[in-house]
Amino acid sequence: MKEQIQKAEGKLGILTPGMGAVATTFMAGVIAVNKGLAKPIGALTQMGNIRLGKRTESKYPLIKDFVPLANLQDIVFGGWDVYEDNVYQAAVHAKVLEASLLEKIKPELEAIKPMKAVFDRTFVKNLDGQFIKTGATKWDLAKQVMDDIENFKDANDVNRVVVVWCGSTEIYFEASEVHETLANFEKGLKENDPNIAPSMIYAYAALKLGVPFANGAPNLTIDIPALVELSKETNTPIAGKDFKTGQTLMKTILAPGLQARALGVHGWFSTNILGNRDGLVLDDPDNFKTKEVSKLGVLEDIFKPETNPDLYGEIYHKVRINYYPPHGDNKESWDNIDIFGWLGYPMQIKVNFLCRDSILAAPIVLDLALFIDLAKRANMSGIQEWLSFYLKSPQTAPELRPEHDIFKQLMKLQNTLRHMMGEDLITHLGLDYYQDLVDVLS
Amino acid sequence: MKEQIQKAEGKLGILTPGMGAVATTFMAGVIAVNKGLAKPIGALTQMGNIRLGKRTESKYPLIKDFVPLANLQDIVFGGWDVYEDNVYQAAVHAKVLEASLLEKIKPELEAIKPMKAVFDRTFVKNLDGQFIKTGATKWDLAKQVMDDIENFKDANDVNRVVVVWCGSTEIYFEASEVHETLANFEKGLKENDPNIAPSMIYAYAALKLGVPFANGAPNLTIDIPALVELSKETNTPIAGKDFKTGQTLMKTILAPGLQARALGVHGWFSTNILGNRDGLVLDDPDNFKTKEVSKLGVLEDIFKPETNPDLYGEIYHKVRINYYPPHGDNKESWDNIDIFGWLGYPMQIKVNFLCRDSILAAPIVLDLALFIDLAKRANMSGIQEWLSFYLKSPQTAPELRPEHDIFKQLMKLQNTLRHMMGEDLITHLGLDYYQDLVDVLS
Amino acid sequence: MKEQIQKAEGKLGILTPGMGAVATTFMAGVIAVNKGLAKPIGALTQMGNIRLGKRTESKYPLIKDFVPLANLQDIVFGGWDVYEDNVYQAAVHAKVLEASLLEKIKPELEAIKPMKAVFDRTFVKNLDGQFIKTGATKWDLAKQVMDDIENFKDANDVNRVVVVWCGSTEIYFEASEVHETLANFEKGLKENDPNIAPSMIYAYAALKLGVPFANGAPNLTIDIPALVELSKETNTPIAGKDFKTGQTLMKTILAPGLQARALGVHGWFSTNILGNRDGLVLDDPDNFKTKEVSKLGVLEDIFKPETNPDLYGEIYHKVRINYYPPHGDNKESWDNIDIFGWLGYPMQIKVNFLCRDSILAAPIVLDLALFIDLAKRANMSGIQEWLSFYLKSPQTAPELRPEHDIFKQLMKLQNTLRHMMGEDLITHLGLDYYQDLVDVLS
Amino acid sequence: MKEQIQKAEGKLGILTPGMGAVATTFMAGVIAVNKGLAKPIGALTQMGNIRLGKRTESKYPLIKDFVPLANLQDIVFGGWDVYEDNVYQAAVHAKVLEASLLEKIKPELEAIKPMKAVFDRTFVKNLDGQFIKTGATKWDLAKQVMDDIENFKDANDVNRVVVVWCGSTEIYFEASEVHETLANFEKGLKENDPNIAPSMIYAYAALKLGVPFANGAPNLTIDIPALVELSKETNTPIAGKDFKTGQTLMKTILAPGLQARALGVHGWFSTNILGNRDGLVLDDPDNFKTKEVSKLGVLEDIFKPETNPDLYGEIYHKVRINYYPPHGDNKESWDNIDIFGWLGYPMQIKVNFLCRDSILAAPIVLDLALFIDLAKRANMSGIQEWLSFYLKSPQTAPELRPEHDIFKQLMKLQNTLRHMMGEDLITHLGLDYYQDLVDVLS
Repeated sequence: MKEQIQKAEGKLGILTPGMGAVATTFMAGVIAVNKGLAKPIGALTQMGNIRLGKRTESKYPLIKDFVPLANLQDIVFGGWDVYEDNVYQAAVHAKVLEASLLEKIKPELEAIKPMKAVFDRTFVKNLDGQFIKTGATKWDLAKQVMDDIENFKDANDVNRVVVVWCGSTEIYFEASEVHETLANFEKGLKENDPNIAPSMIYAYAALKLGVPFANGAPNLTIDIPALVELSKETNTPIAGKDFKTGQTLMKTILAPGLQARALGVHGWFSTNILGNRDGLVLDDPDNFKTKEVSKLGVLEDIFKPETNPDLYGEIYHKVRINYYPPHGDNKESWDNIDIFGWLGYPMQIKVNFLCRDSILAAPIVLDLALFIDLAKRANMSGIQEWLSFYLKSPQTAPELRPEHDIFKQLMKLQNTLRHMMGEDLITHLGLDYYQDLVDVLS
Repeated sequence: MKEQIQKAEGKLGILTPGMGAVATTFMAGVIAVNKGLAKPIGALTQMGNIRLGKRTESKYPLIKDFVPLANLQDIVFGGWDVYEDNVYQAAVHAKVLEASLLEKIKPELEAIKPMKAVFDRTFVKNLDGQFIKTGATKWDLAKQVMDDIENFKDANDVNRVVVVWCGSTEIYFEASEVHETLANFEKGLKENDPNIAPSMIYAYAALKLGVPFANGAPNLTIDIPALVELSKETNTPIAGKDFKTGQTLMKTILAPGLQARALGVHGWFSTNILGNRDGLVLDDPDNFKTKEVSKLGVLEDIFKPETNPDLYGEIYHKVRINYYPPHGDNKESWDNIDIFGWLGYPMQIKVNFLCRDSILAAPIVLDLALFIDLAKRANMSGIQEWLSFYLKSPQTAPELRPEHDIFKQLMKLQNTLRHMMGEDLITHLGLDYYQDLVDVLS
Repeated sequence: MKEQIQKAEGKLGILTPGMGAVATTFMAGVIAVNKGLAKPIGALTQMGNIRLGKRTESKYPLIKDFVPLANLQDIVFGGWDVYEDNVYQAAVHAKVLEASLLEKIKPELEAIKPMKAVFDRTFVKNLDGQFIKTGATKWDLAKQVMDDIENFKDANDVNRVVVVWCGSTEIYFEASEVHETLANFEKGLKENDPNIAPSMIYAYAALKLGVPFANGAPNLTIDIPALVELSKETNTPIAGKDFKTGQTLMKTILAPGLQARALGVHGWFSTNILGNRDGLVLDDPDNFKTKEVSKLGVLEDIFKPETNPDLYGEIYHKVRINYYPPHGDNKESWDNIDIFGWLGYPMQIKVNFLCRDSILAAPIVLDLALFIDLAKRANMSGIQEWLSFYLKSPQTAPELRPEHDIFKQLMKLQNTLRHMMGEDLITHLGLDYYQDLVDVLS
Repeated sequence: MKEQIQKAEGKLGILTPGMGAVATTFMAGVIAVNKGLAKPIGALTQMGNIRLGKRTESKYPLIKDFVPLANLQDIVFGGWDVYEDNVYQAAVHAKVLEASLLEKIKPELEAIKPMKAVFDRTFVKNLDGQFIKTGATKWDLAKQVMDDIENFKDANDVNRVVVVWCGSTEIYFEASEVHETLANFEKGLKENDPNIAPSMIYAYAALKLGVPFANGAPNLTIDIPALVELSKETNTPIAGKDFKTGQTLMKTILAPGLQARALGVHGWFSTNILGNRDGLVLDDPDNFKTKEVSKLGVLEDIFKPETNPDLYGEIYHKVRINYYPPHGDNKESWDNIDIFGWLGYPMQIKVNFLCRDSILAAPIVLDLALFIDLAKRANMSGIQEWLSFYLKSPQTAPELRPEHDIFKQLMKLQNTLRHMMGEDLITHLGLDYYQDLVDVLS
């Protein structure tokens, strides 16, 4: 497989529908890193090591030195937004990064200007931007997005493009007939079917052009048969959905730990306070519903109550998000976890995470963009389950239950990279360190 | 390998040097479980599942249904202590389990009486028990312990015995010449070498008889070349050291999670309050030192600062244990973790774990006893690194760095069981769910 | 004034509309105390001291030894509920007190049986009890309650009665014309005015008979001109509303402390988790509204933003209550407080209160009952603002802003007692300890 | 009394022995406030209101508009330190205030230069400054400090001076014979008595000149009969000791709240992490002892276990301070409080205060300086107990127990101000709002 991977030559365009706090923190960050002003902490592709071979060999190269990823210096940024602010203005408004840092890269940020967005307020009531495309049908809008992508490639002399959704959470709705087949979907585009959300229009446009698409919000978007079909047809990798940051990240770290030790769980209460635009959007119950579904599934899939009813059969899981302006982007979570141990004796764990929403999300945008570009060059198409490491609600093959345990996800990601590069997979068995006779992988 | 494992026939004796809070909670618990009064929550051997085959097969048997472990009904208990209290009295004094539960199993508990302990107050200043063996030399004491074990086997018609150290933490000291070889050690026993601690005398006695030994405290005990040599000679499995409960358990869950995401760590402050006898012993600085060394190594080995200095090169790690009688055995920890993400922006995690020391330790005693008995029957001798899952300071082959990441430890444990039983190892690669052509393990 | 207070002779009947967790914990507690099984911790009337005279005199008698309160041995219990359970059954169901304690006072508890309740599900949707009075009009129902009170007095040979509302929170509504005057109110009773809530019917009945009434829920109840008028007419003391327990208690302790030091506050986020019947009732938004209004006012009245806009002009205050069954009556709160100090630098306070709802409320029921009985005997009628110490939303004279600072409330309570008994009031000036010439109160 | 207070004319010099984090944050802050760059949040003298008259009058003037305090514009700064850095350099090193703020007032800060310190490393092992006075005897050193003060007055055309100790905590020792009388003390100065600490030399020099002295550290300093005698002799007010910030501030807010409600306390565990120079000094056990004594007394004096043994007779109180460099000046505390309520049922409170040490201390320096200057002008001499509001370990008349309840301290402070200005004292009785006949203070 290693030999078949195309090299990462030329420039890579990263386009984000949504150029708010997350996208601007991502873009400003990569630019700052390229200027030597900061480090891309939190990006596994840049800072993470991967073990190769046996423990005694002590081979832990950086991932970026192991697999052929695009170089940060070769990235070009673009995107769409409902507000006309350039990235400098949007970043100042988002109040995530310090003014002193933004000043140092102001010209580069000002040069990145949004294209007009596909927007429909039905799907996001609490936003009111006016920088919006018009068109007779959703089909027309999709065509405009395709033109945007092509124009961006030409204008920037870009070799390859990927699209990462960084927009708001859309309201909750379930897949229906129009999402069943590609034919239905294209008919729906032309007939302005109300069940086709703006995010799906972007995804359609990208996939139609063979441009990889990753979804950072809990919207359906590419998680419908029609667009999986399209991704196969155009040989394009896709990954979704919902960046795994903050509280859910902690949950997929802690829950596997409790399960590892066969500790039972009676209840898990999670509350969040945040004051950024994302918080404002999620203050609307219809939009929160989409997020809630994404957040709630995590524990059930890790604990598998039906497999172990004594430990997890009666878990009560509640998630709350509260709009709290004093904290701005400094999202904070508090979890109360009611566990029980030996003979059923109860214990409690409280976790207070004073985090920063966009600071945690930005490196995920980078990693997803670089890995999905790698997947494209490695000729991998359709759902990339090995990227579920980054996602709250991983998209999988229809017959598969998603895997939320972040350590299994990491194992899957790392063994996928090892597999791509022809290295032995790691199983952590390691009996051979102790017995000469054993003939197994380490 | 599967065919060579001897069956778990007849009774299994579990002997614990130290019959305080942990040991009595363990014994009372197993008895309560056998009477149908409670469940052995927290014991992976009893409550844990293991995945076999591919995800689509949905095969998740209980571990106890997968590997041939001793049955809980076949266990017989015994041990040594410096106080003459029987297990009922000691359990009442420990105040871990409710009086109403202890009442229901009072006759069974009263029947378990300690044998006189090998004790030397030099090693544990804050204890003052008087139920103690006397002998001209440490060699004599070791002989007495061997006699105790043999007598216990005869008196209880026991087929196999294992020993699990549940005693106090001894003072800190480093291995020296007397610990280098078995010959030196036996000479030291006969000459009353002051560097031979009581726990080493128990371990020597057990291993000499081919009885597996696991060490639940951070003492050196079996972690010296002399006793590793003996374990090989008598073909006996050993495992140590220091039960991984409470705060360190949480640490080896959280740290791998932070590392998975390439998040940096500036500092980690850990404080504990507990009011049981363990807390009293650790109030002495010499004893705390032993525990501190055991607790501090965890982060360094997980984060590997030398491999990733940008993320972990300057971590400041501090651990405090405070004797606080109002909490009794309800050990409570509070951790402040200073992390940093994208571009170096700081974030904080606070974890408050309201746990119960002995409730978390008791199932570990059970699992270690059952697994090390299995290892003996599977003809595995010497250090059992696959049991490091249960231990704060895992003993490994000399050339190996211990693995503290609980998820890698679990993988190692589970793949060891799969390997024993002839099942495919799990790598979590899983590309075959998505591509027909790929020919790899799932 | 001291001489005019009537003695506390004979029995005191305490009747509670609502015999759920709070009322049964209160009743069982007093009975247990009378039997010497426990102490009335948390009841200022029983356990609290009051300083008399100068500091150098060291006179700190118990309050119960200072003012002529009813003796606990002279209390007789009764009440109304929508469920027919006797107090033993209700207490078992509430799961607040340990079974072993309830067993010891089972006969006494079983003997206390509820009378049929005045109930209207319009006001509390999430309750479904069937033990309910019927009557053609609300006037008829009020008459029935008066009969109940009279019958209770006769049957139990009771000298005096007080009523303390321990029922559920009714839905939110504001006072209107029917509540303006006693005449309107009585007309409304006869005409079944929909704005007369069940709690008002109990209050009317009590006050009409000259029986003091205290309100432990945030309902309007007696906080309407009509019933204040009646209380004056029948010379009856009243106090309300909403027992100050848990999070709001902490808030009225902390907020005065921050204000004392002129520290500013940007935001205060309060979340609660509880799983008792109160939590179930408050899961309905209409009922939560009533509670929310009661809880939110606290900070505004303490901080007085209009007096100090630099410190408190932009405070963002949010309160959430979450029904979380795993915790039962063990209500738990988590507060995040964003403060700022010197030059505006931000700081944060997090408070996690693992409390017990009914354990905190029960002694308040006792104190309010004893003090309001004292007030009656001292010939004090109408609103008793000095009891606002116990209440989340204190009822005051129309022109007065309520005082929420618990320390000013305590000062008011204690100086009221000193005033009643003819003792010097305390001002904490104390200059006379240092200067001979100063002629002031100490 | 009001008429006898001298006006605050001319300049006020504030001299601080110790020009580290606290003193420089104080000085920089006042300068920033004077330039309109920030507000003196946390300073009661500047931001606090005081109620006058009855509640219905709504008279809440600012304290600075009520009593004749020195104006911030009239303050001149000076001090002594063992390091030669000017205030700008010291403030940059302290890392409390943002660089951007310090830049704006750089010239003013650079102009403030320390005078050589009286220093003896015996009393503070972990400091190593070299900018130190030399002299044959402690008497000579005291004379040099007096000269410094006089020179400062002349050089800056200052009308009045006060001294506020902002230096490090000295090691623990108890008062002995040399501290008993002024005569002994002066003899000791001349004979270099080892029990005379540097802070005492400063205090002696100030008081000898009639300059008020306040002590912000837990050292004995002025809390000895000899210097109280001197303060009376020279008619000079004094106040001490130990600025009440952070955890102890919270403790004196919370403990009175628990006591108000007659809630019992089993245990109180307090831990701190901080990484500034103060933390480094307190890492030495001898210096920590001084601080520990100051911190431990608080609870005992508030709860008075001997008066109420049922509630507070068995409280276990433990305080820990941990040097933790990652946090710098951002001191953080975590408290676990084990309380019990009705019938003895246990509950827990956890408080996590993410505070800033110097930000909380700086306004106290200002308030103490302004109030003690007011006291001097009001002809008040000796111990000023009304300033105990600001102090962890308030100095009182010998026969008096200190009052730690911050609300009683505030009452004392405010009623002292009212008394000075001829206003009615406040008792919070307020019965007159409800009854025409009552003739009492409100």
